[in-house]
Amino acid sequence: MEKVNITEKLALFNDFWNPRITGELNGQHVKLVKFKGPFVWHKHDDEDEMFLVVKGEFRMEFRDKTILLRENEFLIVPKGIEHRPVAEKEVSVLLFEPITTLNTGDAKSELTKMNPEKI
Amino acid sequence: MEKVNITEKLALFNDFWNPRITGELNGQHVKLVKFKGPFVWHKHDDEDEMFLVVKGEFRMEFRDKTILLRENEFLIVPKGIEHRPVAEKEVSVLLFEPITTLNTGDAKSELTKMNPEKI
Repeated sequence: MEKVNITEKLALFNDFWNPRITGELNGQHVKLVKFKGPFVWHKHDDEDEMFLVVKGEFRMEFRDKTILLRENEFLIVPKGIEHRPVAEKEVSVLLFEPITTLNTGDAKSELTKMNPEKI
Repeated sequence: MEKVNITEKLALFNDFWNPRITGELNGQHVKLVKFKGPFVWHKHDDEDEMFLVVKGEFRMEFRDKTILLRENEFLIVPKGIEHRPVAEKEVSVLLFEPITTLNTGDAKSELTKMNPEKI
């Protein structure tokens, strides 16, 4: 059992849309990820997903609205809801989601990360 | 679906050891809580518990060691492990844990909060 320093973990990688696993509890993963630019529209049929902004800001687009998320804010996207994160500038985000969650949900592509790295 | 601003939520209460529910996903709660002083020794037989320091610092005591947690650090305490949070000064903490989790675990007392408030 060891603590995790989020700032130190974020310094270990610089690529975007590639979540790293930093913790596991109760069948859920705690991940860290950096976003920049637009991601793909997708949904998760079986998983609710939480996005907590650690540094920076991004907007979460839905088919009927957009929510701007700033530092120290979080959003829970329920299963089945189409969404697309878009970051004008680099942003660091903590994710809390079931172990089964694929980053691109139902929209598999070259952006899909099948086996996220543990750091 | 609405975002949650952690700073704004923390401004809504000033008591200690009384977690508030600020989100729910996949059978888990996202809670905010303020600690000050020593809590009680306890464990959770069925729930892993995550502590993320939002502001301030505290130490998590175990029977065989102590871990100091500062801002932007988190710790996952596995089910079954006895622990006791102690805060020399006020600290604000975000908790991720199953909906079934009681704050005092197996050590029910006047500190036990049976039905945490949603804010």
